Amino acid sequence: MKLYDAAVSGNAYKVRLMLALLGRDYETVSINLPAKEQKTAEYLAVNPLGQVPALDDDGYVIRASPAILAYLARKYGGEDWLSSDADGLGEVMQWLSFSANEMINGPAISRALIKFNRQGDLELAQTRARAALGILDGRLADNDWLALGRPTIADIACYPYAGLVWEGQIEIDAYPALKPWFARIEALPGYVGMDGLGG
Amino acid sequence: MKLYDAAVSGNAYKVRLMLALLGRDYETVSINLPAKEQKTAEYLAVNPLGQVPALDDDGYVIRASPAILAYLARKYGGEDWLSSDADGLGEVMQWLSFSANEMINGPAISRALIKFNRQGDLELAQTRARAALGILDGRLADNDWLALGRPTIADIACYPYAGLVWEGQIEIDAYPALKPWFARIEALPGYVGMDGLGG
Repeated sequence: MKLYDAAVSGNAYKVRLMLALLGRDYETVSINLPAKEQKTAEYLAVNPLGQVPALDDDGYVIRASPAILAYLARKYGGEDWLSSDADGLGEVMQWLSFSANEMINGPAISRALIKFNRQGDLELAQTRARAALGILDGRLADNDWLALGRPTIADIACYPYAGLVWEGQIEIDAYPALKPWFARIEALPGYVGMDGLGG
Repeated sequence: MKLYDAAVSGNAYKVRLMLALLGRDYETVSINLPAKEQKTAEYLAVNPLGQVPALDDDGYVIRASPAILAYLARKYGGEDWLSSDADGLGEVMQWLSFSANEMINGPAISRALIKFNRQGDLELAQTRARAALGILDGRLADNDWLALGRPTIADIACYPYAGLVWEGQIEIDAYPALKPWFARIEALPGYVGMDGLGG
């Protein structure tokens, strides 16, 4: 199994974390994002969108972190990380949508604007980030996990940019349910962190 | 089954189309978006994100169009619209991600800026729209359907904002594989259109 990876990417980290929690060995192909290696013809043949992460599992090539998480969970995790029944699948997937929309437009963009000096409206991104963290906090106030009452790929998908939100200069303490949730995730067997996340 | 719906929303239309293709009856609750009905306390109790669509299937409440499509496919469509095996699930889900990222940031935003007079960078959105249409066109040049060699929720998720792209003042003719794909979708038994789409 080969992961096209970038150390600083929260989306790529989601896949590294899932692979670690599943105890799967894999090879890393580092894509140098500042050098635009994700836009070379060679890489576009792997992922025409020119983004990391992408995964090559013995010739089966897949892109986009929510899809990769679902693939890995179904292939190597049985029912542990993703239900196969309609109700459970839907409940997990609505948080995958949240991880790809609200968590990107708010927390991930805030971080990118500051950490990578991107152009954009920081105030708008931070406002969206606070709204997204408020939604997570509301859900986690009465639930240990985002979906199904157990750790799933919903948590794996939403956790990284929530945990990295301090890099977007947003105070996490206004959302009291988040740090205990971070701690529950960080206590999962096999957990690995990334730069800026997980102590 | 109750759909929280808005006639002009391409995301809500995805669910209406899926329900029609599955031959399911449902009740519509129209949410008046210009009047901000999606932000009332009553609606936020249904969907805390304050967005349409949301679906209430006999007390099971779910939001976000990709999640609703997956739920409906799994619940009422057997293997027809979504595989349950890892490879097929992953392949469909990478196009659901595309429908929620590239198809929103390009085609849907271009349309919203023009049709609803939203504030934003039209040139950027149109550039992204052309890139997204190019990816679809590349995929469909050699494939009748986006995933699995048959119509799936991947097509249902990507089709609406592709078909509505003229409302964002983007020429579809530069992408020759798209109109034949539209025609294949529009020929599916049970197909329904929306304002601006499907003749």
